[in-house]
Amino acid sequence: MSLKTVLSIILSSACFAVTIAQSTQQRIRQYRQSRETILMDEYRQFVSIPNVSSDSANIRKNAVFIVQMMKQRGITATLLDGTKPGTNPAVFGEVTVPGATKTLIFYAHYDGQPVNPKQWADGLQPFVPVFITAPVEQGGTIVTTHKTGDAVNPAWRLTGRGSADDKAGVMTILNAYDALVKSNSKPTANLKFFFEGEEEVGSTHLGDILQKHRDKLQSDLWIIADGPRHVSGKKLVQFGVRGDVNMHLTVFGPKRPLHSGNYGNWAPNPAQRLVTLLASMKDEDGKILIKGFYDDVTPLTASEKQAIAALPNMETALKKELGIAKPDGNGAPFQELLMIPTLNINGIQSANVGAMAGNVIPAKAEAVLDLRLVRGNDVARQMQRVKDHISSKGFYVLERDPTDAERQQYPKLIKITAGVGYNAQRTPMDLPIAQGVVAAVQSTSSEPIVLLPSSGGSLPLYLFENVLKANVVSVPVDNYDNNQHAENENVLVQYLWDGIETMAAIMQIN
Amino acid sequence: MSLKTVLSIILSSACFAVTIAQSTQQRIRQYRQSRETILMDEYRQFVSIPNVSSDSANIRKNAVFIVQMMKQRGITATLLDGTKPGTNPAVFGEVTVPGATKTLIFYAHYDGQPVNPKQWADGLQPFVPVFITAPVEQGGTIVTTHKTGDAVNPAWRLTGRGSADDKAGVMTILNAYDALVKSNSKPTANLKFFFEGEEEVGSTHLGDILQKHRDKLQSDLWIIADGPRHVSGKKLVQFGVRGDVNMHLTVFGPKRPLHSGNYGNWAPNPAQRLVTLLASMKDEDGKILIKGFYDDVTPLTASEKQAIAALPNMETALKKELGIAKPDGNGAPFQELLMIPTLNINGIQSANVGAMAGNVIPAKAEAVLDLRLVRGNDVARQMQRVKDHISSKGFYVLERDPTDAERQQYPKLIKITAGVGYNAQRTPMDLPIAQGVVAAVQSTSSEPIVLLPSSGGSLPLYLFENVLKANVVSVPVDNYDNNQHAENENVLVQYLWDGIETMAAIMQIN
Repeated sequence: MSLKTVLSIILSSACFAVTIAQSTQQRIRQYRQSRETILMDEYRQFVSIPNVSSDSANIRKNAVFIVQMMKQRGITATLLDGTKPGTNPAVFGEVTVPGATKTLIFYAHYDGQPVNPKQWADGLQPFVPVFITAPVEQGGTIVTTHKTGDAVNPAWRLTGRGSADDKAGVMTILNAYDALVKSNSKPTANLKFFFEGEEEVGSTHLGDILQKHRDKLQSDLWIIADGPRHVSGKKLVQFGVRGDVNMHLTVFGPKRPLHSGNYGNWAPNPAQRLVTLLASMKDEDGKILIKGFYDDVTPLTASEKQAIAALPNMETALKKELGIAKPDGNGAPFQELLMIPTLNINGIQSANVGAMAGNVIPAKAEAVLDLRLVRGNDVARQMQRVKDHISSKGFYVLERDPTDAERQQYPKLIKITAGVGYNAQRTPMDLPIAQGVVAAVQSTSSEPIVLLPSSGGSLPLYLFENVLKANVVSVPVDNYDNNQHAENENVLVQYLWDGIETMAAIMQIN
Repeated sequence: MSLKTVLSIILSSACFAVTIAQSTQQRIRQYRQSRETILMDEYRQFVSIPNVSSDSANIRKNAVFIVQMMKQRGITATLLDGTKPGTNPAVFGEVTVPGATKTLIFYAHYDGQPVNPKQWADGLQPFVPVFITAPVEQGGTIVTTHKTGDAVNPAWRLTGRGSADDKAGVMTILNAYDALVKSNSKPTANLKFFFEGEEEVGSTHLGDILQKHRDKLQSDLWIIADGPRHVSGKKLVQFGVRGDVNMHLTVFGPKRPLHSGNYGNWAPNPAQRLVTLLASMKDEDGKILIKGFYDDVTPLTASEKQAIAALPNMETALKKELGIAKPDGNGAPFQELLMIPTLNINGIQSANVGAMAGNVIPAKAEAVLDLRLVRGNDVARQMQRVKDHISSKGFYVLERDPTDAERQQYPKLIKITAGVGYNAQRTPMDLPIAQGVVAAVQSTSSEPIVLLPSSGGSLPLYLFENVLKANVVSVPVDNYDNNQHAENENVLVQYLWDGIETMAAIMQIN
């Protein structure tokens, strides 16, 4: 055989392999295109089911809906409970592929953050999904002409709590499998599916569920479909997440709200005390002033640093879109700032503002803090630093409301309660099976995909490491401007279609 | 005539006079006692009519109800509009007494502060008045056994927005006149009645109404029935009020709420900026740090200082009742602190706390400030000091939401809007007709009444001075723990009965 012949064979083989890959992707796309209205109608039904984590009755309706979706697609499906009463069930499914040597397990969560319908734009409701032409903050309007069964513009967005975070994960994973099978292809690995119902309340019982069902949940890799793609719009593989915990603070004032005139200058105002406390935690650049807050951070590895340096610079575009003249961080790059711990005021309230405001000295003032943790941080240690800071400002710290005797004794009283929280997680970027996922995702994109050592966001992925000794990578599908966790949450329709292709490609990794 | 005879005549005359006075008061009391259930049923109907100042339709129902009350008592009654559309009407009434040389005009307001029903205790609603056994904050419970027409325990409290502030003023004034006439007595002065409907929104159109009807509203003295009696429970005559104005602050963050993980450490948090700003305005003792804030205060006169020194010391009792270990003011006496200007956080809100909290960097953070003013302060000048302070902290100040261009240009943006507001007012304590009121109120009390140079609270009394060149004193009727301006507002039934006797005595001053 001449060199030319050998080269020719090699080249044609290579071309053949590429042709097959393209062809499968095209068949998947065609199958999806032929069923867009059906897929979208089903997804709207799914998003219509209220999914606030604390709403157990509706949470179970969501779980049952997912089981149905899975069974319709030929996937065995069951609910996994933990050992504790009041646990929102996880939905588990499995597909065994003859001859497959690896097992992939796909994760998404079907529960959503709390909603305040009053904060949603006119015409939008958390659990009445509609299409909008663009984000409402950018002048998007509701598509009033669309009826069930009509074609859907891929540039539209579907609104609703969970439309992006993270029912989109469930939707794209299950439809990827369906499209793959219906397109006369098959997965190269055994597949498992695990859809959590408590992610938005800190995955309180996830460790328990993983422990209880550890045999069933063994795999070579967890694929986490949650969070947004890169802000540039590029597809993304993430190797880690920040940890997360919430702390709820309540500063106590007079036992009852007082007339601000009849007691003003004499009765201490709890809102004033709370703002003074919170102000002491950060400087004007957003640097956290709590002692030791940055001490435990594990330095980035060389490959992590390299990956961060290679990330597209989105700051100029983001500043413009978000209306930010000067970001926090004293000039540090956006992505580096996501690799250090945070302290964020999620919300603050004392009495009322706006039309309901009254001339009162409020009886209490509340704030919720969000702490994001990076590798090296420990939840308990980081929270203790915040508590120590609060004590150092003269507050007497309680985990409950004060008694009358405590009110008489301590001038400054605060109640601190905290969620369970969890630490950060990172997978080494050079893990072979993870590199297989990178190649698969890249095969679905004409642009170079983005590799991120850690997301700024959080998932309890350390549990997979701790309980199951598992490997984990994240492959997000949502648009970055999805308003997740807030009012007017939405998912870009094209990104759902893209996500189906992404997940199908991963199901065929070598 | 012997000296003994003369003395006897003098003594019997004196005794006769005293007997008459006691007798009138007793007859008034007996008349009230015979009609308590009727009076209370009517009052519950009155408090049932929603009276939030901005609720024009219901405000008018209140005005019509008062007109009916007046006509049933033989008082001519009309509504006084101003010259501006959208003005809540004042209710005016008049009684001419043959031979009388003086005219007294009685003031109360029938509008109430905004309500947030969710903040009221279980079973209590702002406009469904019920009886409670004590303040709910002190363990009071709802009297479920009471039916319309049943006897009312004078130690109970009637709940509802306006039950104390200030429908109690209308109730006691009109029933005082009725009881006086029905007890075969008569006023010694011509009487006028003026019930305002916009007090809780800063009496925006009061000046206009006074100006338009200035001839009709001439008098020798305005008697203001509003606010609480002294915290000791003693009856009170007040010679002045603090001025008042609200400022609404909105600090802007990113144009839409952002995920606290995906943007945390980079996107500035408007709640953090607002707390830092508010913290800069006061020190730990409540001293206001805004430049020049205390500069304009007119020193107290000798008689005002004397009156303050004579006031009962309620601080120990108040601290215990309100659960305050250490008041603001660095040890200054309570009453002296009410004679200097205030800056109070009425309310603060950014995103949500509690069950509705989400992990977000909010898009905005709001606070409402209440500024109380004393003699010497000017509303515009005092607000300008606050604005100058905010500017000095690097904020670009707007009176509307920022444009995109402004968001790009200015790192720190704030919107400040303000109510109209008004200055303080004080009447000289030695004014003869005011001393007549003092004597009348004292005649209804077995204890020494309290004389206060100025209330800590506010009313637009400077308008009476400015527009009508009138004299003004205040005679409050409410219990001090009435939760006015807040949830669970209530009036002590006995204080309504007392108020009727107080107002009737004033109607008979010499």
